[in-house]
Amino acid sequence: MAKQILLINGANLQMLGTREPAIYGSTTLSSLESSAIAHAASLGSTLTVFQSNWEGAIIDKICSSRGLVDAIIINPGAFTHTSVAIRDAFASAEVPFVEVHISNIHAREAFRHTSYLSDKAVAVVCGLGVFGYTAAIEFVVKHLKVKEREA
Amino acid sequence: MAKQILLINGANLQMLGTREPAIYGSTTLSSLESSAIAHAASLGSTLTVFQSNWEGAIIDKICSSRGLVDAIIINPGAFTHTSVAIRDAFASAEVPFVEVHISNIHAREAFRHTSYLSDKAVAVVCGLGVFGYTAAIEFVVKHLKVKEREA
Amino acid sequence: MAKQILLINGANLQMLGTREPAIYGSTTLSSLESSAIAHAASLGSTLTVFQSNWEGAIIDKICSSRGLVDAIIINPGAFTHTSVAIRDAFASAEVPFVEVHISNIHAREAFRHTSYLSDKAVAVVCGLGVFGYTAAIEFVVKHLKVKEREA
Amino acid sequence: MAKQILLINGANLQMLGTREPAIYGSTTLSSLESSAIAHAASLGSTLTVFQSNWEGAIIDKICSSRGLVDAIIINPGAFTHTSVAIRDAFASAEVPFVEVHISNIHAREAFRHTSYLSDKAVAVVCGLGVFGYTAAIEFVVKHLKVKEREA
Amino acid sequence: MAKQILLINGANLQMLGTREPAIYGSTTLSSLESSAIAHAASLGSTLTVFQSNWEGAIIDKICSSRGLVDAIIINPGAFTHTSVAIRDAFASAEVPFVEVHISNIHAREAFRHTSYLSDKAVAVVCGLGVFGYTAAIEFVVKHLKVKEREA
Amino acid sequence: MAKQILLINGANLQMLGTREPAIYGSTTLSSLESSAIAHAASLGSTLTVFQSNWEGAIIDKICSSRGLVDAIIINPGAFTHTSVAIRDAFASAEVPFVEVHISNIHAREAFRHTSYLSDKAVAVVCGLGVFGYTAAIEFVVKHLKVKEREA
Amino acid sequence: MAKQILLINGANLQMLGTREPAIYGSTTLSSLESSAIAHAASLGSTLTVFQSNWEGAIIDKICSSRGLVDAIIINPGAFTHTSVAIRDAFASAEVPFVEVHISNIHAREAFRHTSYLSDKAVAVVCGLGVFGYTAAIEFVVKHLKVKEREA
Amino acid sequence: MAKQILLINGANLQMLGTREPAIYGSTTLSSLESSAIAHAASLGSTLTVFQSNWEGAIIDKICSSRGLVDAIIINPGAFTHTSVAIRDAFASAEVPFVEVHISNIHAREAFRHTSYLSDKAVAVVCGLGVFGYTAAIEFVVKHLKVKEREA
Amino acid sequence: MAKQILLINGANLQMLGTREPAIYGSTTLSSLESSAIAHAASLGSTLTVFQSNWEGAIIDKICSSRGLVDAIIINPGAFTHTSVAIRDAFASAEVPFVEVHISNIHAREAFRHTSYLSDKAVAVVCGLGVFGYTAAIEFVVKHLKVKEREA
Amino acid sequence: MAKQILLINGANLQMLGTREPAIYGSTTLSSLESSAIAHAASLGSTLTVFQSNWEGAIIDKICSSRGLVDAIIINPGAFTHTSVAIRDAFASAEVPFVEVHISNIHAREAFRHTSYLSDKAVAVVCGLGVFGYTAAIEFVVKHLKVKEREA
Amino acid sequence: MAKQILLINGANLQMLGTREPAIYGSTTLSSLESSAIAHAASLGSTLTVFQSNWEGAIIDKICSSRGLVDAIIINPGAFTHTSVAIRDAFASAEVPFVEVHISNIHAREAFRHTSYLSDKAVAVVCGLGVFGYTAAIEFVVKHLKVKEREA
Amino acid sequence: MAKQILLINGANLQMLGTREPAIYGSTTLSSLESSAIAHAASLGSTLTVFQSNWEGAIIDKICSSRGLVDAIIINPGAFTHTSVAIRDAFASAEVPFVEVHISNIHAREAFRHTSYLSDKAVAVVCGLGVFGYTAAIEFVVKHLKVKEREA
Repeated sequence: MAKQILLINGANLQMLGTREPAIYGSTTLSSLESSAIAHAASLGSTLTVFQSNWEGAIIDKICSSRGLVDAIIINPGAFTHTSVAIRDAFASAEVPFVEVHISNIHAREAFRHTSYLSDKAVAVVCGLGVFGYTAAIEFVVKHLKVKEREA
Repeated sequence: MAKQILLINGANLQMLGTREPAIYGSTTLSSLESSAIAHAASLGSTLTVFQSNWEGAIIDKICSSRGLVDAIIINPGAFTHTSVAIRDAFASAEVPFVEVHISNIHAREAFRHTSYLSDKAVAVVCGLGVFGYTAAIEFVVKHLKVKEREA
Repeated sequence: MAKQILLINGANLQMLGTREPAIYGSTTLSSLESSAIAHAASLGSTLTVFQSNWEGAIIDKICSSRGLVDAIIINPGAFTHTSVAIRDAFASAEVPFVEVHISNIHAREAFRHTSYLSDKAVAVVCGLGVFGYTAAIEFVVKHLKVKEREA
Repeated sequence: MAKQILLINGANLQMLGTREPAIYGSTTLSSLESSAIAHAASLGSTLTVFQSNWEGAIIDKICSSRGLVDAIIINPGAFTHTSVAIRDAFASAEVPFVEVHISNIHAREAFRHTSYLSDKAVAVVCGLGVFGYTAAIEFVVKHLKVKEREA
Repeated sequence: MAKQILLINGANLQMLGTREPAIYGSTTLSSLESSAIAHAASLGSTLTVFQSNWEGAIIDKICSSRGLVDAIIINPGAFTHTSVAIRDAFASAEVPFVEVHISNIHAREAFRHTSYLSDKAVAVVCGLGVFGYTAAIEFVVKHLKVKEREA
Repeated sequence: MAKQILLINGANLQMLGTREPAIYGSTTLSSLESSAIAHAASLGSTLTVFQSNWEGAIIDKICSSRGLVDAIIINPGAFTHTSVAIRDAFASAEVPFVEVHISNIHAREAFRHTSYLSDKAVAVVCGLGVFGYTAAIEFVVKHLKVKEREA
Repeated sequence: MAKQILLINGANLQMLGTREPAIYGSTTLSSLESSAIAHAASLGSTLTVFQSNWEGAIIDKICSSRGLVDAIIINPGAFTHTSVAIRDAFASAEVPFVEVHISNIHAREAFRHTSYLSDKAVAVVCGLGVFGYTAAIEFVVKHLKVKEREA
Repeated sequence: MAKQILLINGANLQMLGTREPAIYGSTTLSSLESSAIAHAASLGSTLTVFQSNWEGAIIDKICSSRGLVDAIIINPGAFTHTSVAIRDAFASAEVPFVEVHISNIHAREAFRHTSYLSDKAVAVVCGLGVFGYTAAIEFVVKHLKVKEREA
Repeated sequence: MAKQILLINGANLQMLGTREPAIYGSTTLSSLESSAIAHAASLGSTLTVFQSNWEGAIIDKICSSRGLVDAIIINPGAFTHTSVAIRDAFASAEVPFVEVHISNIHAREAFRHTSYLSDKAVAVVCGLGVFGYTAAIEFVVKHLKVKEREA
Repeated sequence: MAKQILLINGANLQMLGTREPAIYGSTTLSSLESSAIAHAASLGSTLTVFQSNWEGAIIDKICSSRGLVDAIIINPGAFTHTSVAIRDAFASAEVPFVEVHISNIHAREAFRHTSYLSDKAVAVVCGLGVFGYTAAIEFVVKHLKVKEREA
Repeated sequence: MAKQILLINGANLQMLGTREPAIYGSTTLSSLESSAIAHAASLGSTLTVFQSNWEGAIIDKICSSRGLVDAIIINPGAFTHTSVAIRDAFASAEVPFVEVHISNIHAREAFRHTSYLSDKAVAVVCGLGVFGYTAAIEFVVKHLKVKEREA
Repeated sequence: MAKQILLINGANLQMLGTREPAIYGSTTLSSLESSAIAHAASLGSTLTVFQSNWEGAIIDKICSSRGLVDAIIINPGAFTHTSVAIRDAFASAEVPFVEVHISNIHAREAFRHTSYLSDKAVAVVCGLGVFGYTAAIEFVVKHLKVKEREA
């Protein structure tokens, strides 16, 4: 049966393509989301997308995904560094997730070097640009298959 | 006259009973709220309940309680560790409050050991499980009576 | 052509005049906003106002201002110390901004001494009371003229 | 069979009622201990009391309780912040314990914000005044019953 | 009666207009001082000026102002970050003061982020360029009037 | 012309497949290297491999690659956290590189959370298991093409 | 009426004259105590002495002095740096005290540079050798007279 | 002449054999002490034993050993991490000592990684289980002989 | 031959008697200096006095005292916490010195808790009020006699 | 069957007997190794020796010992404090090891107080001089027997 | 045309030759200055000298050198570690400078390891004794020539 | 007799002239070494050269120089910041050494601000470019002559 993947983009990512292109590139969010959906489909999975600047909305989304999606790919944006609540939402929902950052956060301000999510993530990808989403999707599909075989 | 108590539950507490039962137990939020309302009533007080995963909603609630409730009992969930704004909301509203945590936060991750609320709270209770809410209600009712006598 | 200025007030500032008057004074938010609008008008600029206790709403507001306003004056309240997302919103919107605090935050709790915004702000004003907004408006108008002449 | 509870009060608590009443209230230690004994009895348990300003005496007491008491309620006073040996005594004795503080230690000097016991306690209660002892006794009785049923 | 204001500029500010114009602008110190004197006069106050690169001279000046001036506006320059003695001089002289910085010190080196004066100042202004002096003068005149009315 | 990629594996990676399989998986180094070579070939690039437990050997390798390879993919193993010399070798060789870790280093001991290489890398990948090498190779090939087009 | 002064010497001070004479000098504890008693008597005050290596004994002594002595002079020895309980005992007993150290603790190991008592003491004397006790006695007698006159 | 060795065991070590056998093993304290006495005797030395949960008692013991014993072997238990007074007692007594821990304290909680004694000890042994006492005794006897020959 | 003592008072101490009398008392500097001269004379020593708000002047004074005075008593005022140069001046002049503070600096702001001089001083006295100078003079005279006898 | 023990000495230990004899004693490395081999043989075990100043060589040695030796005794010299790679080599090889230091590293420079190996070691011995090797060999032989009996 | 070099010596350097010769050597300041003048002359440059214990004097000197000297060589003495104002003076004067220390400051107290000047200096020399001045002069002359050729 | 000097260059210095010329200049290593040999010869000393990217090789070299060379000049490159083993090698070899850096390491990344060698070096030179080697050679020759005269 087709696997369900949820792609969440956090604060300010609706500005993709417009926001600081030197850091984030020129792809827009909608084009990124279309590619992600198509790529997942070509691998036999279903991917749905969600974006919000509201921490509460993201928590609601994650909690309500419990039992309905097989994996989440999240670029939390700035919430990476400040939200314990999103960390807890993943614990509540019990869904495996991959953390993606477009830029290399290790080469930016010091407060971007720590994450409330990384030690709970299955994997962390940063600095690959928007190709990071592609890599995460391929990894997630493979990861789910392996888990299925093991089960 | 019957005292007014507001019970606020913060981020992810709608998952109670489902979320990590080894840590939080199997009582659901609605059953917890029903018991709290009944318990307060048996002590001659009126207790109303509120839950949100949205920090802004909780701030609105606290501020709009100014002059209308006699005390607040709050389990802020993950906002405990990150929200200066909720701290300030209590200062704005000038309502005494008790901070409650179901689990013993001192026995969990390091970032759960600090709270932006504790030094402003009248009291802090953690690790008593859901009985912590019961203890807080009894204390609040007694505390309000003492204050009334002193006034 | 008249310059567009946006004035944003963050968490708990709707309580102005009521909240801790020893710290924040007795002017209400609506009177402060009326004065700001009038003052800007007298200098030939248009100022619009916005207040929210919701971090997500403020991010939405800043991002959607891109290309529509010439400068933002913001008193982020407690979000000053906790919100990387608002910092990022300014980077996305590419609008110059001035950070205003009514009280002298250097004379308050330690966690109020750091700001996620100050190093990105054009200027920071604190401790001037509500006159700080006046000074910020005058500075912004002058600043915009200088930029225009340089362009 | 009646459960055995040991109540330990640590350094300077013999001064209760005399010592800084603005912080600790006016109840004396002997009256507090009498109430605790009566309260436990009314719930069908036996509570014995112990107080000392000597860390060694408290360690002796805890170690010699091994196998003889079902739970300990302890207000370690200042030893909370400095005694690894009392922490180790609990590990030796293998008795579950609840940590109680009369005042809200989070609202006092910085060195009172850390405890060598909290992460090993079943629960921590602070700032409820002497009612904290009452809440702890009720919790312990209930907690023991639950454990018994599970066994 | 006309109010007496003392304007002190500290280390290296005699270089204004010459020193790092990208940071400090092109106004010279003497032109800045003339404007300040005229501005204060137009508001009915008397402003006198003083500049020194010598910490001892500034301490002497502040101490000898006791009882003779109504307020001090000071841009301590680099002494901001290193001089406890100037802090103490203000305590000795018992004169209210406003701290002014031309540049946004929060956006510069880390050691410029702390001040030995800010928590004792009535207000702190930074990043407004030389307009910061103007804002401070207006604030001081208004502040003195308010104090007079209250007395 | 076919692009030249160098794959370097650092300390202890010759143990792959044997060493802590719960962390690193069961693929051996030689099978990993064969797959990498084949994968690169299928994308029209030439990939050569190198492994050493000797920091000096890795420095020699990187320096002598100057002008001969188009990109390096490196899993430095434990040298990640201790070797400034490898960092400097990349600066000397002026070859762009991608840093790969099989496990999620953010979820392991604290000293594995910092890297002397990440802020100089084009990208960093961790926690994807051995698929991380695959993703890095795809990224590198794409990256080289983009650079070529831009040149 | 003759004032009552209590002189407490803490851990290891019974070794005075024997212990590390290069640091502590060659006066024995009993000779030091005799001189102190005689000196106080010559100034019209009564001084009693106490020494213990047991923190609990010192706490007992301080608490039981409440209302019976007018001032305490204490050389806490090593307890200076580790005992919150002695700090609390002084708060319980409400007796003013002077802290004395024979050696200059600032010129020794780093952990001797902090004291749990100094910020609660009336005065702190160190490095005057055993003359420090003499100075403390003179100060205490004078201090008590001043307080009496003010009462 | 037979050398005199004193073996001191600190807080909670009377629980040996009972306390956390996974960490400390199943040998009881009295059997450990008997073996130590016999072992020393077989090497021509006299070993006496002492155990207390009271820091003051241990200080008394060390100080009164001055000039009477040739070396001390101490397992301070939890006092390792909190007692400056025991450190000072060794300085007073001028007796060389070896610090022994049964478990590997470096593999336990962070606060067990620092010791107030190690930099003053002749040697430190940890993690050898109760064999650590045997090794310490052999070393002390050899060490004393070497010192004698050198004298 | 009469011993030569130099008494130095640092920044803002010319304000003594006027400055914050709640902290520093009502004795003026000139009366304090007269008493010090008379007291030293009664003990057979010659004391000269110096005060400056200028760090450079104090350094000049200390350096030029080399070989001419037997001891210095210094209350550095705020320079205590910021002047490495005064520390070095003492090293250059090779004169023993006693550090005196009128108030208990340990009970004031955190930055007053550290001194660049204390570890080089023979002794440190604080909180004894102006009697601290008297105690320092007595100690210095006695200390010089002891050194003379030893020489 | 005879147990296999590997003794590794790290950086600069070939200088033993020559290097800083006040710290390391006058035994040479070859004499130390001969004694160790003989001692192990007398206990029925086979001990082989290895020394290198090259971190890579030590890693190679440890990794290639996997499955061939029963225990390793290592004095890593300066690599103790800098090599994560040697730590990882032990994890790869899955051989239990004892860490030995000739001198008491706790009494030397601060950077020698931390070890990348201690929390993974079975035991740590320091300051026993070259006898530390003897003690480690005896412990290892005993430890292996116990493990064998348990298996 | 002859290049102009200014040599500044800071606090306590007038004591050279007298002050702590084990650290600073036996050359006096005037002999050092004569040699420096002669050395510069022999290289075709003009060197003038200045020494002061007064930070303000040094700032005045640097600022007034703007446009008149080609380079400054400074040994700031203790001001190195405390003076942001001297740092700023260099920024104002826009003169390249070399920082010289006679002793190896890295081998002395911790507070001497940081400098407010080093990151702005062209070069830093320490531990070469008074030869450090010679090296600085040679370097400066060469540096000026290179700049001239480039211009 | 001619003095023997050894010049060691560490990691990546074989790249000199090629590597980052903006930082390190365009002189190649072999030309630098030839000049150094010639320069030493002109001063009557013999200088030999050594370069390696292998920490172990450098340790071997230093240790085997014991008694054979009179001084070492070392530019450790990146090993400066990470190698305790090289520090220990110097202690083993008992040869005085000078530390040289071509660039001003104080103006680069934070991790380049600390050195494991500087506090043991006779002198440290940085920021003089390759002239730093020249200065070091001159200093060493002079230093050896002075030592000879003193012996």
